[in-house]
Amino acid sequence: MKKIKVGVAGYGTIGQRLADGVAMQEDMELVGIADLAPTLSLQALREKNMVGANGITYKLYLVDGADKAAFAAKDIPVAGTFEELCKEVDIMLDSAPGGVGAQNKANYYDKYGVKAVFQGGEKNAVADVFFHGYANYEKGLGADYLKLTSCNTTGLIRAVDCLDRKVGIEKVAITIIRRVADPGDYHRGLTNALQMEKAPSHQAVDLMTIMPHVDATGILVHTPVTHGHIITVLATAKDGKKITKEMALEAFQAHPRIRVVTLEEGFKGNASFFKYARDLGNRRGDMYEIGLWADSIVESGNDIMFAINIPQESVTIPETIDAIRAAMRMQETREEGTAATNRYLGIGAFKKA
Amino acid sequence: MKKIKVGVAGYGTIGQRLADGVAMQEDMELVGIADLAPTLSLQALREKNMVGANGITYKLYLVDGADKAAFAAKDIPVAGTFEELCKEVDIMLDSAPGGVGAQNKANYYDKYGVKAVFQGGEKNAVADVFFHGYANYEKGLGADYLKLTSCNTTGLIRAVDCLDRKVGIEKVAITIIRRVADPGDYHRGLTNALQMEKAPSHQAVDLMTIMPHVDATGILVHTPVTHGHIITVLATAKDGKKITKEMALEAFQAHPRIRVVTLEEGFKGNASFFKYARDLGNRRGDMYEIGLWADSIVESGNDIMFAINIPQESVTIPETIDAIRAAMRMQETREEGTAATNRYLGIGAFKKA
Amino acid sequence: MKKIKVGVAGYGTIGQRLADGVAMQEDMELVGIADLAPTLSLQALREKNMVGANGITYKLYLVDGADKAAFAAKDIPVAGTFEELCKEVDIMLDSAPGGVGAQNKANYYDKYGVKAVFQGGEKNAVADVFFHGYANYEKGLGADYLKLTSCNTTGLIRAVDCLDRKVGIEKVAITIIRRVADPGDYHRGLTNALQMEKAPSHQAVDLMTIMPHVDATGILVHTPVTHGHIITVLATAKDGKKITKEMALEAFQAHPRIRVVTLEEGFKGNASFFKYARDLGNRRGDMYEIGLWADSIVESGNDIMFAINIPQESVTIPETIDAIRAAMRMQETREEGTAATNRYLGIGAFKKA
Amino acid sequence: MKKIKVGVAGYGTIGQRLADGVAMQEDMELVGIADLAPTLSLQALREKNMVGANGITYKLYLVDGADKAAFAAKDIPVAGTFEELCKEVDIMLDSAPGGVGAQNKANYYDKYGVKAVFQGGEKNAVADVFFHGYANYEKGLGADYLKLTSCNTTGLIRAVDCLDRKVGIEKVAITIIRRVADPGDYHRGLTNALQMEKAPSHQAVDLMTIMPHVDATGILVHTPVTHGHIITVLATAKDGKKITKEMALEAFQAHPRIRVVTLEEGFKGNASFFKYARDLGNRRGDMYEIGLWADSIVESGNDIMFAINIPQESVTIPETIDAIRAAMRMQETREEGTAATNRYLGIGAFKKA
Repeated sequence: MKKIKVGVAGYGTIGQRLADGVAMQEDMELVGIADLAPTLSLQALREKNMVGANGITYKLYLVDGADKAAFAAKDIPVAGTFEELCKEVDIMLDSAPGGVGAQNKANYYDKYGVKAVFQGGEKNAVADVFFHGYANYEKGLGADYLKLTSCNTTGLIRAVDCLDRKVGIEKVAITIIRRVADPGDYHRGLTNALQMEKAPSHQAVDLMTIMPHVDATGILVHTPVTHGHIITVLATAKDGKKITKEMALEAFQAHPRIRVVTLEEGFKGNASFFKYARDLGNRRGDMYEIGLWADSIVESGNDIMFAINIPQESVTIPETIDAIRAAMRMQETREEGTAATNRYLGIGAFKKA
Repeated sequence: MKKIKVGVAGYGTIGQRLADGVAMQEDMELVGIADLAPTLSLQALREKNMVGANGITYKLYLVDGADKAAFAAKDIPVAGTFEELCKEVDIMLDSAPGGVGAQNKANYYDKYGVKAVFQGGEKNAVADVFFHGYANYEKGLGADYLKLTSCNTTGLIRAVDCLDRKVGIEKVAITIIRRVADPGDYHRGLTNALQMEKAPSHQAVDLMTIMPHVDATGILVHTPVTHGHIITVLATAKDGKKITKEMALEAFQAHPRIRVVTLEEGFKGNASFFKYARDLGNRRGDMYEIGLWADSIVESGNDIMFAINIPQESVTIPETIDAIRAAMRMQETREEGTAATNRYLGIGAFKKA
Repeated sequence: MKKIKVGVAGYGTIGQRLADGVAMQEDMELVGIADLAPTLSLQALREKNMVGANGITYKLYLVDGADKAAFAAKDIPVAGTFEELCKEVDIMLDSAPGGVGAQNKANYYDKYGVKAVFQGGEKNAVADVFFHGYANYEKGLGADYLKLTSCNTTGLIRAVDCLDRKVGIEKVAITIIRRVADPGDYHRGLTNALQMEKAPSHQAVDLMTIMPHVDATGILVHTPVTHGHIITVLATAKDGKKITKEMALEAFQAHPRIRVVTLEEGFKGNASFFKYARDLGNRRGDMYEIGLWADSIVESGNDIMFAINIPQESVTIPETIDAIRAAMRMQETREEGTAATNRYLGIGAFKKA
Repeated sequence: MKKIKVGVAGYGTIGQRLADGVAMQEDMELVGIADLAPTLSLQALREKNMVGANGITYKLYLVDGADKAAFAAKDIPVAGTFEELCKEVDIMLDSAPGGVGAQNKANYYDKYGVKAVFQGGEKNAVADVFFHGYANYEKGLGADYLKLTSCNTTGLIRAVDCLDRKVGIEKVAITIIRRVADPGDYHRGLTNALQMEKAPSHQAVDLMTIMPHVDATGILVHTPVTHGHIITVLATAKDGKKITKEMALEAFQAHPRIRVVTLEEGFKGNASFFKYARDLGNRRGDMYEIGLWADSIVESGNDIMFAINIPQESVTIPETIDAIRAAMRMQETREEGTAATNRYLGIGAFKKA
């Protein structure tokens, strides 16, 4: 089988995890990664002799404006230019800072016929399809440019789509308790404060773009923590139908990318998932699944309310891999596409245990 | 007019604010305060020669088990025993640690015919009435033992009762983003984590006790901050009636104990209220009103969603003063009772500005 | 006695406290305050009908570029322009953002013969004298332009100068555990990280400018808290002299602007001072004194080591008032100058208790 | 070569890392681990079919009082009892909660002639030798019971011993900026406060026990973060000798367990080391080396001052492995012992890069 050739533009928090994710896919080849400056992440990669996930060597290409001498000063080997990388790949995962993706598209992707999957920081207009692996896989089939939902929206849609396919959802109201920075961030932060955003939150609006039959709104509050967002969701079924706790729990437990846990097991909050992923020995202490507390599920009249945990650094990786599968028509259905991604990433294995 | 004689048991975070609140009421007399140990708060009071709010001298009585020598060592003057205080007062505001209030009742209040208002830490069974100044003032009329709702519940009920009286509410679903400690606390804390509680939260259950015609549920998440809880509320009107943003805003703006603000004014989060209260020159930097962001109000189908800010240290003070008024039949209606409290505490004055 | 006429440029965190401090001085007149935008602090002042500390009405003047309509929209009364304020005052306390003070000097202070005291954010070159009320009062006598040390440096010098005058200090090495934001700040923050600065810290360098006979160096680490910096100091006496714990303690206890406390009393950390100041009923919950833990003092060979607490929002206020006294030659000696400031601010009263 | 048989008592934060560390040593065999309850860490191990570091299967033994049914309920396989484990091993790494190690010794280690290495939570009296791999390896040779220094002390001694061997140190004064909890901890925490401990800190006292020729004192301040302690050290050489920045830097750079970094590279604070270790792909995102900022080194007269970063979860692992080597006389010198540990843990490899 010919492997799909993939590049990753931007080796930041998301980009390095995308590279790892691609490196795990046996039907894909990670041609290379691209970046602008010799960041800590690239210094770490060099310390490991450029060997990343799955024992794969990551070749580094420099984007326009990069200072080659700065890389040499840190002994980081360079394989070529971003343009050269573009010539080699079938599809680019673009996780460059917001706005740069649009430039890359204009300068290179169009020129070399490279498909691209953009991350949440890019404007919707950059893409033909606003994509989520579980909610609208079919829309991505054969598309040239796809944009992934952001981390909160990706995790939220997993849960809402899961319920929707079981009982039919017509309305959701969400409260996003957002982590404000990632571990190791110093350029943004919040100290002893909860910060409000103007409502409705963009995540609710984005959900409606992906799932237009659902009415969504919500409020977002920033909190001074780093290990995962928590979202509470109140979901209303169509036609006045009641959703019981049992119905919801059954749906969530069957979903490969939702990890149902309890307080009793020791999952006391967002940091428990991070600790658990570290203890699992997961690379970077990452988790691909969202968490869902069984103890949080409560009925509100006919509606159902529950809380999920979003591992912000890694949650979009599986759906981005799904996007490659859809765009390259590697699999024609959401079931096959997501199943392939899950198999290579080891997602859902614990469900059988 | 004969002033109602009031004592305060427990000069902790709540107790010192209750004492200040009583000291501001011109139709009440603060007979004294009682405590067990020479805490920082009592050392501060001594540094001010025992002069508290409104220029009133606070007389200190020692509860059973207090070490008199420890107070002497810090030059804190003692006026007598808790039992002596009980003999002097008409009503006691009991803000002792949870469980102690029940003992005080058994040992002294029953014996000396002293009415009492307990705080949220005490069990409901200690009181005849579970009380909220705006929601069920009439139930407290002439009662001997009342228990106040906790800080979150007090603030939440203000907002829900406010809407209920305008449009009729039948269901609420809340998300409590709880501050985990007060400024200066070292005995409890949370570091870089959001911590879940088992749902439904007790605040939702308590709301139903006070407002039995409303179906309430909710999820509580602890956050590592100290300056106020934030609660998001989704409220459903009776009979399928739609609540518009305008209707909600109008109701909230008319409520003396709700401060409607906007992000544009600079109220960016919970800490803004604290800063604002400090800048107002409020004693201890306290605020009696809950905050409500106009920018947070969004419609969800026929329902309305909004976010409120709860100043946890001071929010229950006005409703506790209301409880004195009801129990002592100082005013016969909620309108008169709350208006008297508001007038002496300076609440709502800004509404006219 | 003719009162000295004082203005305050910039009504931010420092400016509003400077205004309050001046309002407390019976030998000074607060002519007015100046600012650019209708901040939360000015909205709070308006809610109090522009009445600030000591019952004084604060008149507001607008600096160049201010949008008068924005003030009108919030009903904040305006008394005139910054230039008009400059014409009325003898001396200006300039707490405008860094760099603006130099412009104010060039545009107005020189022109109208107004003396000025700048805060730490301004460059040293803006002033004739880098000033500290206790360490070099005499240098400020009659000076036209003075610059105050920053908050950490002001508090640090208090302690080092105190020891120096008792035993003669020749060397200090400091570790600054810096609070990263003030309560209510959202524009800066740090989440779950300790952040290093390049050594030596500017505070050590600044100390040497004020106390040139002392060799100082140090390391600064930012921490995600808001209630006061903590500095550890290792001080070496001249000529190999030993400093005992008793000698240090005696010196610190005699200093009006140093509050010696113990863990046993309940001063467990930086937040305890904030809580204590709130409980004292101090305006804004502020404290003018630095804290010093008696339990932290340890001997290291002949050297002495100890820890102090710096209330960053208010610590520079007394020394800034001292600067007015020196510049205007209200008092000719540091003893008289600082004593006058202390008396009006109520500093040191607790020492006699 | 016959492998040394090692057990690990207590599979908590330290214990699981000790197990991983032993599993990496090719001249040791991890016979098994022991614990009391089916914690999250054990649930994670089970999800990985009990396969830990280096592909080794970890066999679990239950300590007295363990509820076997609770393990069965979570499908965690059990290999036997703690007593059975004791019979199989040459040496036990005891990382049970403080005080339990002494009981284990009395009940089992003495009985079965099992040597043991205790962690910092145990009292010194439990052991014959208070041990540090670099500072006093020879004292541990053939000893039956050793106790490791705590995490801060272990890292601190690395740096001080390193300097001492180069220039001769007679005095140190330290400031410990302590992280208050580990990622995933909910049972301890601190929110928006810096908390003081009574001076001198136990770490300074412990250093003097290991290095009796050094006079040490210091102050410890708790901070609300989770990713590593920072310690500033002021070190004085013997005989009035001056330590230059270059001398210190050269010594630190040559030490395998000290990672010298700069702010310019991107190591901005304690969280940068954690991020870097995650990016390296290190198991659990751990780092064995302490960090040392070249930019923090400053001269203070003849003394030298610098700041180090202590990865609290993993820093004691190498020195504990060293303790096995000393106790079992696997290597007779500190150079050989620590070199063997370093080789198997991959420590210091980056020094050659």
